[in-house]
Amino acid sequence: MALINKLVICGVGLIGGSFALALKNKGEVRHVVGIGRTQAALARAVKLGVIDEAGADLPSALAGADFVLLSVPVGQTDAVLESLALHLQAGTVVTDVGSTKSDVFAAVYRRLDAHLASVVPSHPIAGTERSGVEAANAALFEGKRTVVTPLPENDPAAVEKVKAAWRACGASVVDMAPQDHDRVFAAVSHLPHLLAYGLVHDLAGRANAELLFSHAASGFRDFTRIAASSPEMWRDICMANRQAIVSELDQYLGELALIRSLLLADNGDRLELLFQEAREARTRWGEKTLFDIRDI
Amino acid sequence: MALINKLVICGVGLIGGSFALALKNKGEVRHVVGIGRTQAALARAVKLGVIDEAGADLPSALAGADFVLLSVPVGQTDAVLESLALHLQAGTVVTDVGSTKSDVFAAVYRRLDAHLASVVPSHPIAGTERSGVEAANAALFEGKRTVVTPLPENDPAAVEKVKAAWRACGASVVDMAPQDHDRVFAAVSHLPHLLAYGLVHDLAGRANAELLFSHAASGFRDFTRIAASSPEMWRDICMANRQAIVSELDQYLGELALIRSLLLADNGDRLELLFQEAREARTRWGEKTLFDIRDI
Repeated sequence: MALINKLVICGVGLIGGSFALALKNKGEVRHVVGIGRTQAALARAVKLGVIDEAGADLPSALAGADFVLLSVPVGQTDAVLESLALHLQAGTVVTDVGSTKSDVFAAVYRRLDAHLASVVPSHPIAGTERSGVEAANAALFEGKRTVVTPLPENDPAAVEKVKAAWRACGASVVDMAPQDHDRVFAAVSHLPHLLAYGLVHDLAGRANAELLFSHAASGFRDFTRIAASSPEMWRDICMANRQAIVSELDQYLGELALIRSLLLADNGDRLELLFQEAREARTRWGEKTLFDIRDI
Repeated sequence: MALINKLVICGVGLIGGSFALALKNKGEVRHVVGIGRTQAALARAVKLGVIDEAGADLPSALAGADFVLLSVPVGQTDAVLESLALHLQAGTVVTDVGSTKSDVFAAVYRRLDAHLASVVPSHPIAGTERSGVEAANAALFEGKRTVVTPLPENDPAAVEKVKAAWRACGASVVDMAPQDHDRVFAAVSHLPHLLAYGLVHDLAGRANAELLFSHAASGFRDFTRIAASSPEMWRDICMANRQAIVSELDQYLGELALIRSLLLADNGDRLELLFQEAREARTRWGEKTLFDIRDI
């Protein structure tokens, strides 16, 4: 028996599309309905076999649905949950894929207070710098991790259903509190994205930008790969988690101030020690992290 | 006929070893002598087939040599050139692989003023975060670029010989002035290395470092790959090019101050525009740069 009978994907892009494809591939879903901003995008998703049906409207899409995946930029979470609230049936399990969780919690309590038993926020640590349904693939979550942040009010069966869906997609599942989640990802994901965007933006604005880019090589390529990520998605993440991100940025600015002072003082020994400590930590991490990880 | 009869590699690591292997593979060198800090490392290089002979001392290594490659961390350039000067024969072509060029120029004028016709500095834009002769491979420079920064005093035949050697390794060659070279690479290579080292060093020093690293994924992996680079090499680059690097760092700190103010002002529109401009520049660059580039 399939895990999910009728699945509704709100926002059929890279993540939502990959979730649908993965569950279809495993035979864990019988029917997938897509909801999105434009009918054209939904038609493409149907053509690609990612969804079975382009939902005409929310009431008919949600009727009889046992699982809803919310996969929209986090800035839209509140508005979409507000629409969902009008038509969501009791017992339908809802999860999301937002890269921030405190704001999703707030929106869930604000908009879906009648459904707290069955709304289980989550964050799959998977993605690529490409976006859109065309980039969706059934293997996106294979060997990756999904963080699940259950509400105290959750029905354990709903939590288990969300975890089972992610496991069926090939992900391993870990639990975290939403505030812990947001602080950790501000440090290891949100800040690096800002730093990469910032470097490319800085260089692209120079009078000699062409010359600079023409000499950029693979260190630059890897360092800035994430600067090709979706601007809309990252705007929303920055707005939703700006407190933790500013705090991480300030800590990092302290690190850069230290590096700058070592440069100015010609202190090669201390600089080499700093590089050495970084190299050891990076190498240790790289050796531990043997699975093919991707970030969102 | 081979391009080089007797090649001396001063510093048989990743770059020097790969240069020797590439020329051997192409049949463009007849005999390779290695000079290094330890006889043990040279013995490993002989065993790996990277060099034919571990040089016993500089005078015998340089006797009859027609080409010398200096491939040591740039902080040693001055001292090694000083030793070379005592035994270098007139007409022996010398090049280096330093990631900075103004300091190499200064050292050449200081130490090798009797040999200015035949010393042609260069910088192959190739490498990996791994170092040592074990990482050497004949294909390292294939499809990559080498910047050559000739001296006004250079004999055109010496310049041509250096360029021919890099082309034989599979690299394409471009000319630059040393100051231009150093400013460009401060922006697209040296600064990103510092930023990556800084982020890993910052996180590694936290009380919750283990938790943070356990959630780091592929964005972090690519962003920090270069933080596993050789601390000694990067200390030397930072010391040799610190003026240009501090200037780039300051410009970048201005960019981060802008981003920070947009976060604090909750200005999602401006932040999204900045991300959009960065994404466009990064995507345009990525599409142009189809060859497999690697950075040093």
